[in-house]
Amino acid sequence: MRAPVPALAALVCCSLAAAPRTPTLETAAADELAPTVARILRAALVEGETYPKLRELCSVAPHRLSGSPGAAAAVEWAKLAMERDGLENVRLEPCTVPRWERGDVELLRIVGPAARAGEELPILALGGSVATPPGGITAEVVVVRGFDELEARADEVAGRIVLFDRPMDPGELDPMRAYGGAVDQRVRGAVEAARRGAVAAIVRSLTTAFDDVPHTGGVRYADGVPRIPAAAVGTRGATRIAELVARGDGPLLHLELDCRTHPDAQSYNVVGELVGSELPDEIVIVSGHLDGWDVGEGAHDDGAGCCQAIEVARLLAALDLRARRTIRVVLWMNEENGLAGARAYRAAHADELADHVLAIESDSGGFVPRGFTTDAGPAARAFLERVAALLADAGAERVWTGSGGADVGVLAPDGVTTLGLRPDRQRYFDLHHSARDVFAEVSRRELELGTAALAVIAWAVADRPERLPRN
Amino acid sequence: MRAPVPALAALVCCSLAAAPRTPTLETAAADELAPTVARILRAALVEGETYPKLRELCSVAPHRLSGSPGAAAAVEWAKLAMERDGLENVRLEPCTVPRWERGDVELLRIVGPAARAGEELPILALGGSVATPPGGITAEVVVVRGFDELEARADEVAGRIVLFDRPMDPGELDPMRAYGGAVDQRVRGAVEAARRGAVAAIVRSLTTAFDDVPHTGGVRYADGVPRIPAAAVGTRGATRIAELVARGDGPLLHLELDCRTHPDAQSYNVVGELVGSELPDEIVIVSGHLDGWDVGEGAHDDGAGCCQAIEVARLLAALDLRARRTIRVVLWMNEENGLAGARAYRAAHADELADHVLAIESDSGGFVPRGFTTDAGPAARAFLERVAALLADAGAERVWTGSGGADVGVLAPDGVTTLGLRPDRQRYFDLHHSARDVFAEVSRRELELGTAALAVIAWAVADRPERLPRN
Repeated sequence: MRAPVPALAALVCCSLAAAPRTPTLETAAADELAPTVARILRAALVEGETYPKLRELCSVAPHRLSGSPGAAAAVEWAKLAMERDGLENVRLEPCTVPRWERGDVELLRIVGPAARAGEELPILALGGSVATPPGGITAEVVVVRGFDELEARADEVAGRIVLFDRPMDPGELDPMRAYGGAVDQRVRGAVEAARRGAVAAIVRSLTTAFDDVPHTGGVRYADGVPRIPAAAVGTRGATRIAELVARGDGPLLHLELDCRTHPDAQSYNVVGELVGSELPDEIVIVSGHLDGWDVGEGAHDDGAGCCQAIEVARLLAALDLRARRTIRVVLWMNEENGLAGARAYRAAHADELADHVLAIESDSGGFVPRGFTTDAGPAARAFLERVAALLADAGAERVWTGSGGADVGVLAPDGVTTLGLRPDRQRYFDLHHSARDVFAEVSRRELELGTAALAVIAWAVADRPERLPRN
Repeated sequence: MRAPVPALAALVCCSLAAAPRTPTLETAAADELAPTVARILRAALVEGETYPKLRELCSVAPHRLSGSPGAAAAVEWAKLAMERDGLENVRLEPCTVPRWERGDVELLRIVGPAARAGEELPILALGGSVATPPGGITAEVVVVRGFDELEARADEVAGRIVLFDRPMDPGELDPMRAYGGAVDQRVRGAVEAARRGAVAAIVRSLTTAFDDVPHTGGVRYADGVPRIPAAAVGTRGATRIAELVARGDGPLLHLELDCRTHPDAQSYNVVGELVGSELPDEIVIVSGHLDGWDVGEGAHDDGAGCCQAIEVARLLAALDLRARRTIRVVLWMNEENGLAGARAYRAAHADELADHVLAIESDSGGFVPRGFTTDAGPAARAFLERVAALLADAGAERVWTGSGGADVGVLAPDGVTTLGLRPDRQRYFDLHHSARDVFAEVSRRELELGTAALAVIAWAVADRPERLPRN
């Protein structure tokens, strides 16, 4: 059941602004809010339950790719977890998602005449890839560093496998920016290679680590372009192939994948609320994405964000911090390969979006928080910066400019301001989309501090007498 | 061979100040230094060799307790590593260290009448502890949270084992402060318990993790007070004992240790330099401590700091950034249980200390850097803050007030300004002084960024036309 809507929300809002119930950044010195921030931080560190929730999710549903039985188990777990934590209006909201399966065979082998003939290199099919023909593909390999080089060497590509070997720039201070500088190879490599007649695409894994751990992620095909198999190889394997080619020992590669794409499946966003005390129809979303890849446990991506989002509501309620506005916890389905959950939410809640005050997402890993990234306009941003400044002792005081996240970004065209938790992510791409993204790689204190940072910003915005200025 | 000393160092200094060779914070806008800072950061991330050095140290000499064969192997490794990295004036400087051995038996068992009779709880003897009598000690246990409670219940203590069970406060944002609030039990617990007739002291491990991993550390005895055996038990074990006592099921405990203290041993600080181009007798120390505990690999404590210190010199030389003043890399011996290395250095270099411009130490783990801690006076601090501000994009821009570290702190009474690297340490006490402090817990990027932060601050101070104002 949804909470009732006050008849005169706007009027109530104004009267509250005149006589605020609690100190706010507009009506009092920032340091009057500090004790509440300190309470949230301490409670998160001492009694926070994000970490045990995440242990449970990673155990119950480690593989949560959209449409899979694991994703269904995660949906069920999330609903029960929200109910157990006392969230209100817990519900499933339907969406239709793609369903892709990795299959049982993933093989990349160096075959003659290279010195390394017979050597197998660990790979992961990219999400959405087609299979190879039965028995696989054996072909020569062309190594390129990007689409310009691919175009320049277009006449070498036909009938061959293209290895996209451009590394993430290890010298970038922000690994996410380095990722952004290399991810085009994974997303569009298969299409660009196929346009020029290639029979398969292999991409150097998107990590600055040098190892044999392959990192998957989505590949996109384009209408009218042949769909060729696509896989990620570990950085060590990519370097191995490139070295063989460079010394003229250029190997034949044998690639075998049996990925399958099934009909679209029914799935769900999982939603729960801490209903606002005075303006329940004004919404602050706190969110993560429930789907994940089919390797590792999706602990940092994005089990962490999901468990933090649930915990924000539980923690605020436990501290008797029910805000004026509704805090709506949304666990999105299908961030990784389609954003179907966010799109379904946008459609289903179209008439509510004007009352979405802020949409927060945590999807950069459960690492120690550094601050926030937001697309807020100047007035809203000034407020958010003043709140973030209260997190200086926790080291989470900075505010960057950018989208709050892939899911909440779907709501941005409707004028919804978005904000993302920004953890330190120096370790993120050692793990991201790989078998290494497991619960054991999560630090309890780092994770709970992220929850605290989310709770502080969500509460400050949701309890503000005046609504956060709209984008 | 040491570098020659210019006859008129002070005069040279003044003339340089009038016509500086490179832009500095005094003579140019801070942003003119920014390109050099960016070069250092990028080089550390792309070509940094702190991580492979640390892998090597943890492999060659994982256990480096003062006076042990492992410490001797570490000294040999460090000298070779410095020479291989091209440091100048590499040498061993002698010091005399205690030599304590854990021995072969470490046992804490619950014996009747408790329900848990027979259960063994993992422990580690505290460094410096005496052994139990052969066959061990079996006694009732008194659980206290601190010395006030111990005093209040002094009449219960005679003939018993005292468990000091006060946890590190998990709600402290800075785990180091929480450690500071609980470490008295480990250091002084045995003495305080023995004064009141106790036969042994057990201390709850200093960690906010809840597990069965014991964390060791030094215990101190006092003249005239019986020396009783002292050990750390995991937090889960401590809680188990306290629960049994609280429900009146108070167990007998059986404790067995066969620690041994040998005669003092000869050991060494390992020292190397990047000799200053113009003021070689003015010294900026960059340091870590080479000794470590005899469990785990001492990866974060303090293999990280040692390898960072060596790498600062290698990296600056590789970037052709030889500063005006000498950067002296010092790997201290015996930080963990005596500070004999730092004291020996202070005595041996007494006549040089007036020319020690800054003594930097990295001994808070190889985690992502947040900034620095310093005891610099206002003028020096203002400069250090301006340099640190250049590390904002790396997230290492903050400056806290405090000692630079235990070893460099030995030089502070001589007016030497100290500065410590301050990494994020939310994960530190999960590992500190335990079997979990291993190389696998170190992130390459986090470690190398720490090196970069150290290199920036060392270079900026060492190359400054005017000497950093003295404390």
